[in-house]
Amino acid sequence: MTGRLYGLGIGPGDPELITLKAYRLLRAADVVAYPAPEQGESLARRLVAGHLPGGQEELAIRMPMTAARFPAQEVYDWAAAELGRHLEAGRSAAVLCEGDPFFYGSFMYLFGRMAERFPVEVVPGVSSLTACSAELGAPLASRNDVLTVLPAPLDDAQLRARLQGGEAAAVIKLGRHFARVRDLLTELGLAERARYVEHATMASQRILPLDRVDPAQVPYFSMILLHARGEAWRV
Amino acid sequence: MTGRLYGLGIGPGDPELITLKAYRLLRAADVVAYPAPEQGESLARRLVAGHLPGGQEELAIRMPMTAARFPAQEVYDWAAAELGRHLEAGRSAAVLCEGDPFFYGSFMYLFGRMAERFPVEVVPGVSSLTACSAELGAPLASRNDVLTVLPAPLDDAQLRARLQGGEAAAVIKLGRHFARVRDLLTELGLAERARYVEHATMASQRILPLDRVDPAQVPYFSMILLHARGEAWRV
Repeated sequence: MTGRLYGLGIGPGDPELITLKAYRLLRAADVVAYPAPEQGESLARRLVAGHLPGGQEELAIRMPMTAARFPAQEVYDWAAAELGRHLEAGRSAAVLCEGDPFFYGSFMYLFGRMAERFPVEVVPGVSSLTACSAELGAPLASRNDVLTVLPAPLDDAQLRARLQGGEAAAVIKLGRHFARVRDLLTELGLAERARYVEHATMASQRILPLDRVDPAQVPYFSMILLHARGEAWRV
Repeated sequence: MTGRLYGLGIGPGDPELITLKAYRLLRAADVVAYPAPEQGESLARRLVAGHLPGGQEELAIRMPMTAARFPAQEVYDWAAAELGRHLEAGRSAAVLCEGDPFFYGSFMYLFGRMAERFPVEVVPGVSSLTACSAELGAPLASRNDVLTVLPAPLDDAQLRARLQGGEAAAVIKLGRHFARVRDLLTELGLAERARYVEHATMASQRILPLDRVDPAQVPYFSMILLHARGEAWRV
């Protein structure tokens, strides 16, 4: 009997924002795998540490920090082989995914390598998009608003084209792109409506006006939300 | 002591896709409120029925079916007054929200009426957007893809302008707009890549190619996903 692979959305940060389903599958898995930096602690593992029953085999998928924009294929090849070995031996494996596995997540690289050979189940999770909105206390989108999700690494022309209409938008993966995005929003007259959140629902969460953010300190897990209608949604 | 109001994201349908946090707050609340049709059963209540401990006061927020595009303000005025009465008496109240409260949810109407007078906490939930993607077994968006969420009631020109680039998109709230959206996707040469899901993660879930969908039977809780890159994400 081949084991089953699970891609578990563990939510945006608060350990309590994992679903009952992901919690159950996490605890029942023979092997728990997670992304990790080349050295040091895995954020995903830390977020669920309190849920682990102990005694599970663990597999850290360590990504070289030098990886530019696209992850190192070799690491995923290796991780797929390791996980495949467990599944072939009848062991189930859960891969931890911050937020949701299929919403800008790296789980797709394992899914692409394994879904044709093994039974794979994806368990959706709370994404940082809605977590940020909840923390900001304002609807992300409502009624017939268009909502656009924009990765910050897009170039200025692409960002400008999508933002200038002033519709609801989320600019994600800010990191070192923050200053450029902030300047663009200022140029478009949207800076007043933009709200910045980092590490939503984690203990380290910070919500700041754009002009209070230090661009040198912006983490990858941060975003700027532009709510449609400003405050008019209250009506 | 004033009671606290919670907007609880209960997830897309599968009762197990509620978060540990929403589950805890749901069970601890003195009052449980939920949207309901003018007559008959509330979907939101049905989805969490197995989680209710019994003995809680319940408040059905019944929306006239005749409400055209925007909900009847009077119903929300009434519900806010009812909930306010409970909170003033020191009772906590949980409002059930399918998916996520701030992602095209009607909770914003209560939030807008109550957040300045009472302590309100929004608990994000798994949205149908990522649930559909998980059920389809393909990433919604990845790398630096732009993702656009489009409510189906938008007019043809608005939909066409946003879809024609062939980027990742989700057309939500299909209902009676299905045939129009299908024809538009066909005209744009995107029908082959489009995938239809209704009632994702519920027992009644259906995944169909566009040409197999009966437009007369399409529910409100359905969407069409267009994944960026077709199958190229597998690489």
